Amino acid sequence: MKLFRFGRPGEEKPGVITQDGARVDVSGFGQDYNEAFFGGDGLARLGAWLQKQGASAPKIDSGLRLGPAVCRPSKIVCVGLNYHEHATEQGIAPPKEPVIFLKATTAYCGPNDDLIIPRASKKTDWEVELAVVIGKKASYVSKADALAHVAGFALHNDYSEREFQLERGGQWDKGKGCDTFAPFGPFMATADEVDCGHLGMWLKVNGVMKQKSNTSDMIFDVPTAISYISQFMTLLPGDIISTGTPPGVGAFAKPTPQYLVPGDVVELGIEGLGESRQRVVAPI
Amino acid sequence: MKLFRFGRPGEEKPGVITQDGARVDVSGFGQDYNEAFFGGDGLARLGAWLQKQGASAPKIDSGLRLGPAVCRPSKIVCVGLNYHEHATEQGIAPPKEPVIFLKATTAYCGPNDDLIIPRASKKTDWEVELAVVIGKKASYVSKADALAHVAGFALHNDYSEREFQLERGGQWDKGKGCDTFAPFGPFMATADEVDCGHLGMWLKVNGVMKQKSNTSDMIFDVPTAISYISQFMTLLPGDIISTGTPPGVGAFAKPTPQYLVPGDVVELGIEGLGESRQRVVAPI
Repeated sequence: MKLFRFGRPGEEKPGVITQDGARVDVSGFGQDYNEAFFGGDGLARLGAWLQKQGASAPKIDSGLRLGPAVCRPSKIVCVGLNYHEHATEQGIAPPKEPVIFLKATTAYCGPNDDLIIPRASKKTDWEVELAVVIGKKASYVSKADALAHVAGFALHNDYSEREFQLERGGQWDKGKGCDTFAPFGPFMATADEVDCGHLGMWLKVNGVMKQKSNTSDMIFDVPTAISYISQFMTLLPGDIISTGTPPGVGAFAKPTPQYLVPGDVVELGIEGLGESRQRVVAPI
Repeated sequence: MKLFRFGRPGEEKPGVITQDGARVDVSGFGQDYNEAFFGGDGLARLGAWLQKQGASAPKIDSGLRLGPAVCRPSKIVCVGLNYHEHATEQGIAPPKEPVIFLKATTAYCGPNDDLIIPRASKKTDWEVELAVVIGKKASYVSKADALAHVAGFALHNDYSEREFQLERGGQWDKGKGCDTFAPFGPFMATADEVDCGHLGMWLKVNGVMKQKSNTSDMIFDVPTAISYISQFMTLLPGDIISTGTPPGVGAFAKPTPQYLVPGDVVELGIEGLGESRQRVVAPI
Protein backbone atom coordinates (compact mmCIF):
# COMPACT_ATOMS: atom_id res chain seq x y z
CA MET A 1 0.00 0.00 0.00
CA LYS A 2 1.17 3.53 -0.79
CA LEU A 3 0.00 6.42 1.37
CA PHE A 4 0.18 10.05 0.38
CA ARG A 5 -1.42 13.34 1.33
CA PHE A 6 -2.73 16.10 -0.88
CA GLY A 7 -4.18 19.60 -0.67
CA ARG A 8 -3.06 22.99 0.56
CA PRO A 9 -0.39 23.28 3.28
CA GLY A 10 -1.94 22.59 6.65
CA GLU A 11 -5.17 21.32 5.07
CA GLU A 12 -3.92 18.07 3.56
CA LYS A 13 -6.18 15.05 3.20
CA PRO A 14 -5.08 11.41 3.17
CA GLY A 15 -4.89 9.48 -0.07
CA VAL A 16 -3.88 6.02 -1.27
CA ILE A 17 -2.33 4.91 -4.54
CA THR A 18 -4.17 1.76 -5.51
CA GLN A 19 -2.56 -1.28 -7.10
CA ASP A 20 -3.60 -0.10 -10.57
CA GLY A 21 -1.87 3.22 -9.92
CA ALA A 22 -4.98 5.33 -9.35
CA ARG A 23 -4.89 7.99 -6.63
CA VAL A 24 -7.93 7.98 -4.38
CA ASP A 25 -9.11 10.28 -1.60
CA VAL A 26 -9.56 8.26 1.60
CA SER A 27 -10.87 11.12 3.77
CA GLY A 28 -13.92 8.91 4.22
CA PHE A 29 -11.81 6.56 6.34
CA GLY A 30 -11.91 9.30 8.96
CA GLN A 31 -8.30 9.47 10.11
CA ASP A 32 -5.16 11.17 8.81
CA TYR A 33 -1.73 9.48 8.90
CA ASN A 34 -0.70 10.55 12.39
CA GLU A 35 0.51 9.03 15.66
CA ALA A 36 -2.96 7.73 16.54
CA PHE A 37 -3.36 6.17 13.08
CA PHE A 38 -0.07 4.27 13.11
CA GLY A 39 -0.29 3.45 16.81
CA GLY A 40 -3.85 2.18 16.46
CA ASP A 41 -3.20 -0.40 13.76
CA GLY A 42 -4.33 2.10 11.15
CA LEU A 43 -2.63 0.40 8.21
CA ALA A 44 -4.60 -2.80 8.75
CA ARG A 45 -7.83 -0.91 9.35
CA LEU A 46 -7.30 1.25 6.26
CA GLY A 47 -6.55 -1.85 4.19
CA ALA A 48 -9.81 -3.44 5.32
CA TRP A 49 -11.74 -0.21 4.66
CA LEU A 50 -10.28 0.00 1.15
CA GLN A 51 -11.45 -3.50 0.32
CA LYS A 52 -14.99 -2.48 1.16
CA GLN A 53 -15.06 1.20 0.20
CA GLY A 54 -12.10 1.65 -2.12
CA ALA A 55 -14.06 1.33 -5.35
CA SER A 56 -16.30 4.25 -4.38
CA ALA A 57 -13.53 6.51 -2.99
CA PRO A 58 -13.14 9.67 -5.10
CA LYS A 59 -10.29 9.78 -7.62
CA ILE A 60 -7.85 12.68 -7.25
CA ASP A 61 -6.78 15.15 -9.94
CA SER A 62 -3.12 14.62 -10.74
CA GLY A 63 -2.52 18.39 -10.61
CA LEU A 64 -3.12 18.77 -6.89
CA ARG A 65 -0.27 19.69 -4.54
CA LEU A 66 1.22 16.80 -2.62
CA GLY A 67 1.70 17.29 1.11
CA PRO A 68 4.27 15.41 3.16
CA ALA A 69 3.37 11.72 2.88
CA VAL A 70 2.45 11.31 6.56
CA CYS A 71 1.43 13.88 9.21
CA ARG A 72 4.03 15.98 11.00
CA PRO A 73 5.77 13.54 13.33
CA SER A 74 6.70 14.10 16.97
CA LYS A 75 10.31 13.99 15.83
CA ILE A 76 12.63 13.48 12.89
CA VAL A 77 15.76 11.62 13.96
CA CYS A 78 18.60 11.65 11.45
CA VAL A 79 21.63 9.40 11.14
CA GLY A 80 24.76 11.28 10.08
CA LEU A 81 27.74 9.97 8.12
CA ASN A 82 26.02 6.68 7.38
CA TYR A 83 27.39 5.77 3.94
CA HIS A 84 30.88 4.38 3.53
CA GLU A 85 31.53 6.47 0.44
CA HIS A 86 30.19 9.66 2.08
CA ALA A 87 32.70 9.26 4.91
CA THR A 88 35.41 8.57 2.35
CA GLU A 89 34.66 11.76 0.36
CA GLN A 90 35.18 13.73 3.57
CA GLY A 91 38.43 11.94 4.29
CA ILE A 92 37.25 10.66 7.64
CA ALA A 93 36.96 7.21 9.15
CA PRO A 94 33.46 5.68 9.36
CA PRO A 95 31.91 6.36 12.79
CA LYS A 96 32.20 3.54 15.34
CA GLU A 97 28.57 3.94 16.30
CA PRO A 98 25.74 5.90 14.66
CA VAL A 99 25.87 9.69 14.80
CA ILE A 100 22.35 10.96 15.46
CA PHE A 101 20.76 14.38 15.50
CA LEU A 102 17.29 15.85 15.35
CA LYS A 103 15.69 17.88 12.59
CA ALA A 104 13.09 20.48 13.63
CA THR A 105 9.71 19.28 12.39
CA THR A 106 8.91 22.82 11.19
CA ALA A 107 11.25 21.92 8.30
CA TYR A 108 8.80 19.24 7.17
CA CYS A 109 6.95 19.91 3.89
CA GLY A 110 5.55 18.47 0.69
CA PRO A 111 7.85 16.60 -1.71
CA ASN A 112 7.57 19.16 -4.49
CA ASP A 113 7.31 22.34 -2.41
CA ASP A 114 9.83 25.09 -3.09
CA LEU A 115 13.09 24.96 -1.16
CA ILE A 116 13.39 28.40 0.44
CA ILE A 117 16.96 29.56 0.97
CA PRO A 118 17.28 30.86 4.57
CA ARG A 119 18.00 34.60 4.78
CA ALA A 120 21.59 34.42 5.93
CA SER A 121 22.45 31.27 3.98
CA LYS A 122 25.49 30.95 1.76
CA LYS A 123 25.80 27.16 1.85
CA THR A 124 22.47 25.41 1.34
CA ASP A 125 23.13 21.81 0.31
CA TRP A 126 21.19 18.67 -0.66
CA GLU A 127 21.10 15.12 0.76
CA VAL A 128 18.95 12.34 -0.75
CA GLU A 129 17.98 9.93 2.04
CA LEU A 130 15.88 6.86 2.71
CA ALA A 131 13.42 7.67 5.51
CA VAL A 132 11.70 5.20 7.80
CA VAL A 133 8.24 5.80 9.29
CA ILE A 134 7.79 4.13 12.65
CA GLY A 135 4.65 2.03 13.00
CA LYS A 136 4.84 0.90 16.60
CA LYS A 137 6.29 2.48 19.75
CA ALA A 138 9.94 1.47 19.96
CA SER A 139 11.96 1.59 23.17
CA TYR A 140 15.04 -0.58 23.70
CA VAL A 141 14.23 -2.81 20.74
CA SER A 142 16.70 -5.36 19.44
CA LYS A 143 18.00 -5.42 15.87
CA ALA A 144 16.04 -8.62 15.32
CA ASP A 145 12.78 -6.94 16.34
CA ALA A 146 13.44 -3.56 14.75
CA LEU A 147 11.71 -4.02 11.40
CA ALA A 148 8.52 -5.12 13.15
CA HIS A 149 8.32 -1.50 14.35
CA VAL A 150 8.34 -0.01 10.85
CA ALA A 151 5.21 1.20 9.04
CA GLY A 152 6.96 2.03 5.82
CA PHE A 153 9.56 3.96 3.87
CA ALA A 154 9.72 7.23 1.96
CA LEU A 155 12.01 9.52 0.01
CA HIS A 156 13.45 12.47 1.97
CA ASN A 157 15.75 15.33 1.06
CA ASP A 158 17.66 16.22 4.25
CA TYR A 159 18.55 19.78 3.20
CA SER A 160 21.43 21.19 5.23
CA GLU A 161 22.95 24.65 5.56
CA ARG A 162 26.64 23.83 5.96
CA GLU A 163 27.72 27.12 7.50
CA PHE A 164 24.90 26.99 10.06
CA GLN A 165 25.63 23.30 10.68
CA LEU A 166 29.40 23.39 10.99
CA GLU A 167 30.71 26.95 11.37
CA ARG A 168 28.26 28.73 13.67
CA GLY A 169 29.19 27.13 16.98
CA GLY A 170 27.96 23.96 18.51
CA GLN A 171 25.54 21.44 17.18
CA TRP A 172 24.41 20.40 13.69
CA ASP A 173 20.72 21.03 14.49
CA LYS A 174 21.21 24.73 13.65
CA GLY A 175 21.74 23.91 9.98
CA LYS A 176 19.22 21.11 9.59
CA GLY A 177 15.86 22.48 10.67
CA CYS A 178 15.26 25.55 8.50
CA ASP A 179 11.78 25.83 7.02
CA THR A 180 11.28 23.63 3.89
CA PHE A 181 14.45 21.64 4.65
CA ALA A 182 12.57 18.31 4.84
CA PRO A 183 10.52 17.60 1.70
CA PHE A 184 8.97 14.21 2.39
CA GLY A 185 7.43 11.88 -0.15
CA PRO A 186 5.81 11.64 -2.76
CA PHE A 187 4.37 8.70 -0.79
CA MET A 188 5.09 6.25 1.99
CA ALA A 189 5.28 2.65 0.77
CA THR A 190 4.38 0.12 3.44
CA ALA A 191 7.24 -2.03 4.67
CA ASP A 192 6.07 -5.16 2.80
CA GLU A 193 6.66 -3.40 -0.55
CA VAL A 194 10.29 -2.43 -0.02
CA ASP A 195 13.60 -4.24 0.50
CA CYS A 196 15.17 -1.33 2.39
CA GLY A 197 18.70 -2.71 2.23
CA HIS A 198 18.95 -2.74 -1.56
CA LEU A 199 17.46 0.39 -3.07
CA GLY A 200 19.04 2.48 -5.80
CA MET A 201 18.94 6.22 -5.05
CA TRP A 202 19.92 9.35 -6.94
CA LEU A 203 19.79 13.13 -6.88
CA LYS A 204 20.25 15.67 -9.69
CA VAL A 205 20.76 19.42 -9.60
CA ASN A 206 19.67 21.23 -12.78
CA GLY A 207 19.63 17.88 -14.56
CA VAL A 208 23.19 16.93 -13.59
CA MET A 209 23.58 13.74 -11.55
CA LYS A 210 25.17 14.54 -8.16
CA GLN A 211 24.37 11.53 -5.97
CA LYS A 212 23.98 7.97 -7.23
CA SER A 213 24.23 5.11 -4.80
CA ASN A 214 22.40 2.28 -3.14
CA THR A 215 21.16 1.78 0.42
CA SER A 216 23.39 -1.32 0.51
CA ASP A 217 26.33 1.07 1.10
CA MET A 218 24.96 2.09 4.52
CA ILE A 219 27.37 1.68 7.42
CA PHE A 220 24.53 1.04 9.90
CA ASP A 221 21.56 -0.61 8.24
CA VAL A 222 17.93 0.19 9.02
CA PRO A 223 17.43 -2.40 11.80
CA THR A 224 20.69 -1.30 13.44
CA ALA A 225 19.70 2.37 13.29
CA ILE A 226 16.24 1.77 14.79
CA SER A 227 17.58 -0.44 17.55
CA TYR A 228 20.39 2.01 18.33
CA ILE A 229 18.20 5.13 18.46
CA SER A 230 15.67 3.32 20.65
CA GLN A 231 18.34 2.91 23.34
CA PHE A 232 18.42 6.71 23.74
CA MET A 233 14.85 7.80 23.12
CA THR A 234 11.44 6.25 22.55
CA LEU A 235 10.31 6.28 18.93
CA LEU A 236 6.58 6.94 18.60
CA PRO A 237 4.24 5.73 15.86
CA GLY A 238 4.58 8.14 12.94
CA ASP A 239 8.08 9.28 13.95
CA ILE A 240 10.59 9.51 11.13
CA ILE A 241 14.17 8.29 10.93
CA SER A 242 16.25 9.61 8.06
CA THR A 243 19.07 7.19 7.45
CA GLY A 244 21.89 9.31 6.04
CA THR A 245 23.08 10.37 2.63
CA PRO A 246 25.49 8.83 0.10
CA PRO A 247 28.40 10.77 -1.44
CA GLY A 248 27.89 13.66 -3.82
CA VAL A 249 26.69 16.51 -1.62
CA GLY A 250 27.61 20.05 -2.65
CA ALA A 251 29.96 20.72 0.24
CA PHE A 252 32.45 18.12 -1.00
CA ALA A 253 32.15 18.78 -4.73
CA LYS A 254 35.48 18.93 -6.58
CA PRO A 255 37.26 21.14 -7.45
CA THR A 256 35.07 23.57 -5.47
CA PRO A 257 31.98 23.23 -3.32
CA GLN A 258 28.63 23.88 -4.99
CA TYR A 259 25.71 25.36 -3.08
CA LEU A 260 22.14 25.99 -4.14
CA VAL A 261 21.00 29.35 -5.51
CA PRO A 262 17.54 30.61 -6.46
CA GLY A 263 16.45 29.14 -9.77
CA ASP A 264 18.16 25.80 -9.25
CA VAL A 265 16.06 22.67 -9.55
CA VAL A 266 16.72 19.60 -7.38
CA GLU A 267 15.30 16.23 -8.40
CA LEU A 268 15.72 12.98 -6.50
CA GLY A 269 14.41 9.47 -6.28
CA ILE A 270 14.68 6.11 -4.59
CA GLU A 271 13.78 2.81 -6.22
CA GLY A 272 10.19 1.90 -5.30
CA LEU A 273 9.64 5.18 -3.45
CA GLY A 274 9.07 7.58 -6.31
CA GLU A 275 10.61 10.92 -7.14
CA SER A 276 10.41 14.49 -5.87
CA ARG A 277 11.42 17.86 -7.24
CA GLN A 278 12.15 21.12 -5.46
CA ARG A 279 12.58 24.49 -7.10
CA VAL A 280 15.04 26.67 -5.17
CA VAL A 281 13.72 30.14 -4.32
CA ALA A 282 15.14 33.26 -2.68
CA PRO A 283 14.57 33.98 1.02
CA ILE A 284 11.19 35.42 1.94
CA MET B 1 -2.39 33.80 35.01
CA LYS B 2 -0.85 30.43 35.82
CA LEU B 3 -1.63 27.41 33.64
CA PHE B 4 -1.08 23.82 34.67
CA ARG B 5 -2.28 20.39 33.65
CA PHE B 6 -3.34 17.48 35.82
CA GLY B 7 -4.38 13.85 35.59
CA ARG B 8 -2.85 10.61 34.39
CA PRO B 9 -0.09 10.62 31.76
CA GLY B 10 -1.61 11.13 28.33
CA GLU B 11 -4.99 12.03 29.83
CA GLU B 12 -4.18 15.40 31.36
CA LYS B 13 -6.75 18.15 31.64
CA PRO B 14 -6.06 21.88 31.71
CA GLY B 15 -6.20 23.83 34.96
CA VAL B 16 -5.61 27.37 36.17
CA ILE B 17 -4.29 28.64 39.48
CA THR B 18 -6.51 31.57 40.38
CA GLN B 19 -5.29 34.76 42.03
CA ASP B 20 -6.29 33.48 45.47
CA GLY B 21 -4.18 30.35 44.87
CA ALA B 22 -7.03 27.91 44.21
CA ARG B 23 -6.55 25.30 41.49
CA VAL B 24 -9.50 24.96 39.17
CA ASP B 25 -10.33 22.56 36.36
CA VAL B 26 -10.91 24.51 33.14
CA SER B 27 -11.83 21.54 30.95
CA GLY B 28 -15.11 23.38 30.39
CA PHE B 29 -13.20 25.96 28.33
CA GLY B 30 -12.93 23.23 25.72
CA GLN B 31 -9.29 23.45 24.68
CA ASP B 32 -6.03 22.14 26.07
CA TYR B 33 -2.81 24.20 26.07
CA ASN B 34 -1.56 23.24 22.62
CA GLU B 35 -0.43 24.90 19.38
CA ALA B 36 -4.00 25.78 18.40
CA PHE B 37 -4.66 27.29 21.84
CA PHE B 38 -1.61 29.55 21.90
CA GLY B 39 -1.81 30.35 18.20
CA GLY B 40 -5.49 31.20 18.43
CA ASP B 41 -5.21 33.83 21.15
CA GLY B 42 -6.13 31.23 23.74
CA LEU B 43 -4.72 33.10 26.71
CA ALA B 44 -7.02 36.07 26.11
CA ARG B 45 -10.00 33.80 25.42
CA LEU B 46 -9.32 31.73 28.53
CA GLY B 47 -8.99 34.90 30.61
CA ALA B 48 -12.37 36.10 29.39
CA TRP B 49 -13.92 32.69 30.00
CA LEU B 50 -12.56 32.64 33.54
CA GLN B 51 -14.14 35.99 34.33
CA LYS B 52 -17.52 34.59 33.40
CA GLN B 53 -17.21 30.91 34.36
CA GLY B 54 -14.27 30.80 36.78
CA ALA B 55 -16.37 30.88 39.94
CA SER B 56 -18.22 27.72 38.92
CA ALA B 57 -15.18 25.80 37.60
CA PRO B 58 -14.51 22.69 39.73
CA LYS B 59 -11.76 22.89 42.35
CA ILE B 60 -9.00 20.29 42.04
CA ASP B 61 -7.73 17.95 44.77
CA SER B 62 -4.17 18.89 45.68
CA GLY B 63 -3.15 15.22 45.57
CA LEU B 64 -3.60 14.78 41.84
CA ARG B 65 -0.62 14.18 39.58
CA LEU B 66 0.61 17.23 37.69
CA GLY B 67 1.25 16.80 33.98
CA PRO B 68 3.66 18.94 32.00
CA ALA B 69 2.35 22.51 32.24
CA VAL B 70 1.49 22.82 28.55
CA CYS B 71 0.84 20.17 25.87
CA ARG B 72 3.69 18.36 24.15
CA PRO B 73 5.22 21.00 21.87
CA SER B 74 6.31 20.55 18.26
CA LYS B 75 9.86 21.06 19.49
CA ILE B 76 12.01 21.82 22.52
CA VAL B 77 14.96 24.01 21.53
CA CYS B 78 17.70 24.30 24.11
CA VAL B 79 20.45 26.86 24.50
CA GLY B 80 23.73 25.34 25.65
CA LEU B 81 26.48 26.97 27.72
CA ASN B 82 24.39 30.06 28.39
CA TYR B 83 25.56 31.10 31.86
CA HIS B 84 28.86 32.88 32.37
CA GLU B 85 29.66 30.86 35.47
CA HIS B 86 28.71 27.55 33.79
CA ALA B 87 31.23 28.23 31.02
CA THR B 88 33.80 29.20 33.67
CA GLU B 89 33.33 25.95 35.63
CA GLN B 90 34.16 24.04 32.45
CA GLY B 91 37.22 26.19 31.83
CA ILE B 92 35.99 27.31 28.43
CA ALA B 93 35.36 30.72 26.92
CA PRO B 94 31.74 31.85 26.62
CA PRO B 95 30.36 31.01 23.15
CA LYS B 96 30.43 33.86 20.62
CA GLU B 97 26.87 33.06 19.55
CA PRO B 98 24.24 30.81 21.11
CA VAL B 99 24.80 27.05 20.98
CA ILE B 100 21.47 25.41 20.22
CA PHE B 101 20.28 21.82 20.13
CA LEU B 102 16.97 19.97 20.18
CA LYS B 103 15.53 17.78 22.90
CA ALA B 104 13.28 14.91 21.79
CA THR B 105 9.75 15.71 22.93
CA THR B 106 9.31 12.13 24.12
CA ALA B 107 11.44 13.27 27.08
CA TYR B 108 8.69 15.65 28.12
CA CYS B 109 6.84 14.77 31.35
CA GLY B 110 5.19 16.03 34.52
CA PRO B 111 7.20 18.16 36.97
CA ASN B 112 7.11 15.58 39.74
CA ASP B 113 7.28 12.40 37.67
CA ASP B 114 10.08 9.94 38.42
CA LEU B 115 13.34 10.43 36.58
CA ILE B 116 14.07 7.05 35.01
CA ILE B 117 17.76 6.31 34.57
CA PRO B 118 18.33 5.05 30.99
CA ARG B 119 19.46 1.42 30.81
CA ALA B 120 23.06 2.01 29.76
CA SER B 121 23.49 5.21 31.72
CA LYS B 122 26.40 5.89 34.04
CA LYS B 123 26.29 9.68 33.95
CA THR B 124 22.77 11.05 34.35
CA ASP B 125 23.00 14.69 35.39
CA TRP B 126 20.68 17.59 36.30
CA GLU B 127 20.23 21.11 34.88
CA VAL B 128 17.76 23.63 36.32
CA GLU B 129 16.61 25.93 33.51
CA LEU B 130 14.21 28.74 32.76
CA ALA B 131 11.93 27.67 29.90
CA VAL B 132 10.02 29.94 27.55
CA VAL B 133 6.70 28.95 25.97
CA ILE B 134 6.17 30.57 22.57
CA GLY B 135 2.81 32.31 22.14
CA LYS B 136 2.99 33.44 18.55
CA LYS B 137 4.68 32.04 15.44
CA ALA B 138 8.21 33.46 15.34
CA SER B 139 10.33 33.57 12.19
CA TYR B 140 13.17 36.07 11.75
CA VAL B 141 12.01 38.18 14.68
CA SER B 142 14.15 41.01 16.04
CA LYS B 143 15.31 41.19 19.65
CA ALA B 144 13.00 44.15 20.12
CA ASP B 145 9.98 42.14 19.02
CA ALA B 146 10.97 38.84 20.63
CA LEU B 147 9.11 39.11 23.94
CA ALA B 148 5.87 39.83 22.08
CA HIS B 149 6.10 36.21 20.88
CA VAL B 150 6.19 34.73 24.40
CA ALA B 151 3.17 33.18 26.10
CA GLY B 152 4.91 32.53 29.40
CA PHE B 153 7.65 30.91 31.42
CA ALA B 154 8.11 27.69 33.34
CA LEU B 155 10.59 25.66 35.35
CA HIS B 156 12.40 22.89 33.46
CA ASN B 157 14.98 20.30 34.43
CA ASP B 158 17.07 19.63 31.29
CA TYR B 159 18.32 16.20 32.38
CA SER B 160 21.39 15.12 30.44
CA GLU B 161 23.30 11.87 30.14
CA ARG B 162 26.88 13.09 29.85
CA GLU B 163 28.36 9.94 28.35
CA PHE B 164 25.61 9.76 25.71
CA GLN B 165 25.96 13.52 25.10
CA LEU B 166 29.72 13.84 24.92
CA GLU B 167 31.41 10.45 24.58
CA ARG B 168 29.26 8.41 22.20
CA GLY B 169 30.11 10.11 18.92
CA GLY B 170 28.57 13.12 17.34
CA GLN B 171 25.86 15.35 18.61
CA TRP B 172 24.51 16.26 22.06
CA ASP B 173 20.94 15.22 21.16
CA LYS B 174 21.81 11.60 22.01
CA GLY B 175 22.14 12.47 25.70
CA LYS B 176 19.31 14.97 26.00
CA GLY B 177 16.16 13.23 24.85
CA CYS B 178 15.84 10.10 27.00
CA ASP B 179 12.36 9.44 28.38
CA THR B 180 11.54 11.56 31.48
CA PHE B 181 14.49 13.90 30.82
CA ALA B 182 12.27 17.00 30.56
CA PRO B 183 10.05 17.46 33.65
CA PHE B 184 8.16 20.67 32.90
CA GLY B 185 6.29 22.82 35.39
CA PRO B 186 4.58 22.85 37.94
CA PHE B 187 2.88 25.62 35.93
CA MET B 188 3.42 28.15 33.17
CA ALA B 189 3.16 31.74 34.37
CA THR B 190 2.06 34.16 31.70
CA ALA B 191 4.70 36.63 30.55
CA ASP B 192 3.14 39.60 32.38
CA GLU B 193 3.82 37.92 35.74
CA VAL B 194 7.55 37.33 35.32
CA ASP B 195 10.64 39.50 34.90
CA CYS B 196 12.58 36.81 33.06
CA GLY B 197 15.94 38.57 33.30
CA HIS B 198 16.07 38.61 37.10
CA LEU B 199 14.89 35.33 38.57
CA GLY B 200 16.61 33.43 41.34
CA MET B 201 16.97 29.72 40.60
CA TRP B 202 18.22 26.69 42.53
CA LEU B 203 18.51 22.93 42.48
CA LYS B 204 19.16 20.46 45.31
CA VAL B 205 20.10 16.78 45.23
CA ASN B 206 19.12 14.87 48.38
CA GLY B 207 18.65 18.18 50.16
CA VAL B 208 22.11 19.53 49.29
CA MET B 209 22.20 22.75 47.26
CA LYS B 210 23.96 22.13 43.92
CA GLN B 211 22.90 25.02 41.70
CA LYS B 212 22.09 28.52 42.95
CA SER B 213 22.09 31.37 40.51
CA ASN B 214 20.01 34.01 38.79
CA THR B 215 18.83 34.36 35.20
CA SER B 216 20.69 37.70 35.17
CA ASP B 217 23.91 35.64 34.68
CA MET B 218 22.75 34.49 31.21
CA ILE B 219 25.17 35.16 28.37
CA PHE B 220 22.36 35.49 25.80
CA ASP B 221 19.18 36.80 27.39
CA VAL B 222 15.68 35.59 26.51
CA PRO B 223 14.98 38.13 23.71
CA THR B 224 18.38 37.41 22.16
CA ALA B 225 17.81 33.64 22.29
CA ILE B 226 14.35 33.85 20.70
CA SER B 227 15.52 36.21 17.97
CA TYR B 228 18.60 34.09 17.28
CA ILE B 229 16.78 30.74 17.09
CA SER B 230 14.12 32.25 14.82
CA GLN B 231 16.83 32.97 12.22
CA PHE B 232 17.34 29.19 11.83
CA MET B 233 13.88 27.71 12.32
CA THR B 234 10.32 28.88 12.81
CA LEU B 235 9.08 28.71 16.38
CA LEU B 236 5.45 27.64 16.61
CA PRO B 237 2.91 28.58 19.27
CA GLY B 238 3.42 26.22 22.21
CA ASP B 239 7.05 25.49 21.32
CA ILE B 240 9.50 25.53 24.20
CA ILE B 241 12.91 27.15 24.49
CA SER B 242 15.04 26.06 27.44
CA THR B 243 17.55 28.79 28.11
CA GLY B 244 20.53 26.99 29.61
CA THR B 245 21.75 26.06 33.06
CA PRO B 246 23.89 27.85 35.65
CA PRO B 247 26.97 26.25 37.28
CA GLY B 248 26.69 23.31 39.64
CA VAL B 249 25.90 20.35 37.42
CA GLY B 250 27.17 16.93 38.49
CA ALA B 251 29.67 16.53 35.66
CA PHE B 252 31.80 19.40 36.97
CA ALA B 253 31.48 18.69 40.69
CA LYS B 254 34.76 18.91 42.64
CA PRO B 255 36.74 16.92 43.56
CA THR B 256 34.91 14.26 41.54
CA PRO B 257 31.84 14.26 39.29
CA GLN B 258 28.54 13.23 40.86
CA TYR B 259 25.86 11.44 38.87
CA LEU B 260 22.35 10.42 39.83
CA VAL B 261 21.55 6.95 41.17
CA PRO B 262 18.23 5.32 42.01
CA GLY B 263 16.88 6.65 45.28
CA ASP B 264 18.24 10.17 44.82
CA VAL B 265 15.78 13.03 45.05
CA VAL B 266 16.17 16.15 42.90
CA GLU B 267 14.35 19.34 43.86
CA LEU B 268 14.45 22.61 41.98
CA GLY B 269 12.77 25.97 41.72
CA ILE B 270 12.74 29.34 40.03
CA GLU B 271 11.42 32.51 41.62
CA GLY B 272 7.79 33.02 40.60
CA LEU B 273 7.66 29.70 38.74
CA GLY B 274 7.25 27.25 41.59
CA GLU B 275 9.15 24.11 42.46
CA SER B 276 9.38 20.55 41.19
CA ARG B 277 10.71 17.30 42.62
CA GLN B 278 11.86 14.14 40.85
CA ARG B 279 12.61 10.84 42.51
CA VAL B 280 15.35 8.96 40.65
CA VAL B 281 14.46 5.37 39.76
CA ALA B 282 16.24 2.43 38.16
CA PRO B 283 15.89 1.64 34.46
CA ILE B 284 12.73 -0.15 33.42
